[in-house]
Amino acid sequence: MNVRINQMHAYMDDNGVDAVLVTEPKHVYYLTGFASNPHERFLGLLLPRGDEAILLVPALDLEAAQAAAGASVAKIHTHSDTDDAYAVLRSLMPAGVRVLGIEKEQLSVRRFEALSEAVGAESYVDIGLPLRDMRVVKSPEEAELMRNAVRIVEDVLRAGIALVKPGVTEIELVAELEYRMRKLGAQGPSFDTLVLAGANSALPHGMPGRTAVREGELLLFDLGVFAGGYASDITRTFAVGDVTDEMKRMYAAVLDGNLRAIEAVRPGAALASLDRAARDSITAAGYGPQFNHRLGHGLGLDIHEYPSVHGNNAELLREGMTFTIEPGVYVPGVGGVRIEDDVLVTANGVEVLTRFPKELTVIG
Amino acid sequence: MNVRINQMHAYMDDNGVDAVLVTEPKHVYYLTGFASNPHERFLGLLLPRGDEAILLVPALDLEAAQAAAGASVAKIHTHSDTDDAYAVLRSLMPAGVRVLGIEKEQLSVRRFEALSEAVGAESYVDIGLPLRDMRVVKSPEEAELMRNAVRIVEDVLRAGIALVKPGVTEIELVAELEYRMRKLGAQGPSFDTLVLAGANSALPHGMPGRTAVREGELLLFDLGVFAGGYASDITRTFAVGDVTDEMKRMYAAVLDGNLRAIEAVRPGAALASLDRAARDSITAAGYGPQFNHRLGHGLGLDIHEYPSVHGNNAELLREGMTFTIEPGVYVPGVGGVRIEDDVLVTANGVEVLTRFPKELTVIG
Repeated sequence: MNVRINQMHAYMDDNGVDAVLVTEPKHVYYLTGFASNPHERFLGLLLPRGDEAILLVPALDLEAAQAAAGASVAKIHTHSDTDDAYAVLRSLMPAGVRVLGIEKEQLSVRRFEALSEAVGAESYVDIGLPLRDMRVVKSPEEAELMRNAVRIVEDVLRAGIALVKPGVTEIELVAELEYRMRKLGAQGPSFDTLVLAGANSALPHGMPGRTAVREGELLLFDLGVFAGGYASDITRTFAVGDVTDEMKRMYAAVLDGNLRAIEAVRPGAALASLDRAARDSITAAGYGPQFNHRLGHGLGLDIHEYPSVHGNNAELLREGMTFTIEPGVYVPGVGGVRIEDDVLVTANGVEVLTRFPKELTVIG
Repeated sequence: MNVRINQMHAYMDDNGVDAVLVTEPKHVYYLTGFASNPHERFLGLLLPRGDEAILLVPALDLEAAQAAAGASVAKIHTHSDTDDAYAVLRSLMPAGVRVLGIEKEQLSVRRFEALSEAVGAESYVDIGLPLRDMRVVKSPEEAELMRNAVRIVEDVLRAGIALVKPGVTEIELVAELEYRMRKLGAQGPSFDTLVLAGANSALPHGMPGRTAVREGELLLFDLGVFAGGYASDITRTFAVGDVTDEMKRMYAAVLDGNLRAIEAVRPGAALASLDRAARDSITAAGYGPQFNHRLGHGLGLDIHEYPSVHGNNAELLREGMTFTIEPGVYVPGVGGVRIEDDVLVTANGVEVLTRFPKELTVIG
């Protein structure tokens, strides 16, 4: 029996929920191992309390669903394009479901209206919280998938910086990086790849454009991939030739903040304490106001997921959590430095998944 | 005053809707010209019946919103990350809104609950239909953006086929194509690029993998880009070296089907009649059962949008509609042929936006 599905049953028992319907494809994958993109078609995993799981998939996905989910889901049903998927769902729903758990963050109002009309439960509760609590602690298998996603993006970054020379533009480098993601077996970028040259690197919402790399400037790379369903995310900032003393001071401040935060990672530490460790160090270096965003974000099936690593999050770290640590300092007209690592909380401390060197490196 | 916002006012007047709240970023772009990705932050365009439009944006987007939407939206308000965006929205909502129009297909149940608690309207109606009716007829400016998106993807395809030789793999070609999309100024692919070699081209849900291109086989490319917010989508199938007579017959059947459907495009013709024109021709050539999908789909701000071009759609074509025409024939173990064009319904007939040659071409 599947551990994660068991956890959903424990949630149902504890909260008086009669059944759970999971429709977000990532969550179906998380709970059953069946990865798919059903597009506008209906995909649903029905977990009736105290009964066997039922997976309802588009007819053309039957074989793939059986191969991937057959071990954990005994009953796999299909609907065709001429069926009313909600009518099929109703026929599969056990009698007496009064409280139905749904994903309120993912489900659209239109789908909810069709669903509630077909199923007619008395109340609908959000299963976002139990799913979040499960997802926040990664299994060893998930950690290994994340290590692999990091390995790929670091190979991509290594190949990308070898192409940097004065005159090459931000979007040319983005194209080269995303090309290599594909070649190295990633499913694709986990977010829009950022390459920001010179003063552009100081813009919090900068977009890569036709700006060329120039000697004496900073060059910021922020990129990640999805591989095996899991995301990686890394930022490194480089010096193109000789840079100014101010840029070197900015870099040293951010690097120290990054290292201080990583040192603070261990089970039982508060998320806020990591942000504080980085911010205190950067503030002492004189760049406090220029570190104008949170320290990091959770990472896993989504590129941004729970927890948020900021100064007001009193939640305590647990073994198996994965998140980014990415302090940055941005000086308008000069440039920005951000150094981002992906970390895993271990039994005794931290494993830094990203291993790309962090000393200020001259490229180009 | 903005023509599209006026159309929304006409809809509100005709249907007794007191205000409309648009939160889907593509629709905010469509109605105001302001393109943005607010991520998890709240973005909303409020159109109170008989009153001025109000745009509520994250604080960091204020300048971009003023620059893009200032001409059509007089009032632009902001919320910061420490504000409750729904409380700000309530403060902007005019008194007496009983019926509020929302996008039920895009809005999540969670956002709807927060929204309805803040706003407290008596009923919520779906504005999906009026928006769809507006979007289905493209303006001359939209048609020009689509011509540009087609131009880019055709340049990409031209460059891509020059790289085909026996031994190159499907995913290598995908990487090359997506690299060139970026280089040529596209925002990115409009869907996952497909390159399917040999027998793989017969799989309806085939995914590019490590299969190599081989002499004597078919090679299918299906790709598109987003540029200026609009999508293009083209499929061409090539012969790698000499192919069999059966493959040539399949190709001839699909090409004839494609041409017959295009000939049938004119204002007032039924969408179903296009599907029928292609299907009759392909059936006469003996491949009816092997043409196992609809003829095409609408194209514009989304890669798949209204209308659906299939044999049961009795709706009539109108000038300004844009959609794909993409008959295909798939023979298991042999291969598949699909030829896809993007077309615009004109006052007198059709403009085929895609101009890439369609005769069977030998490459590699």
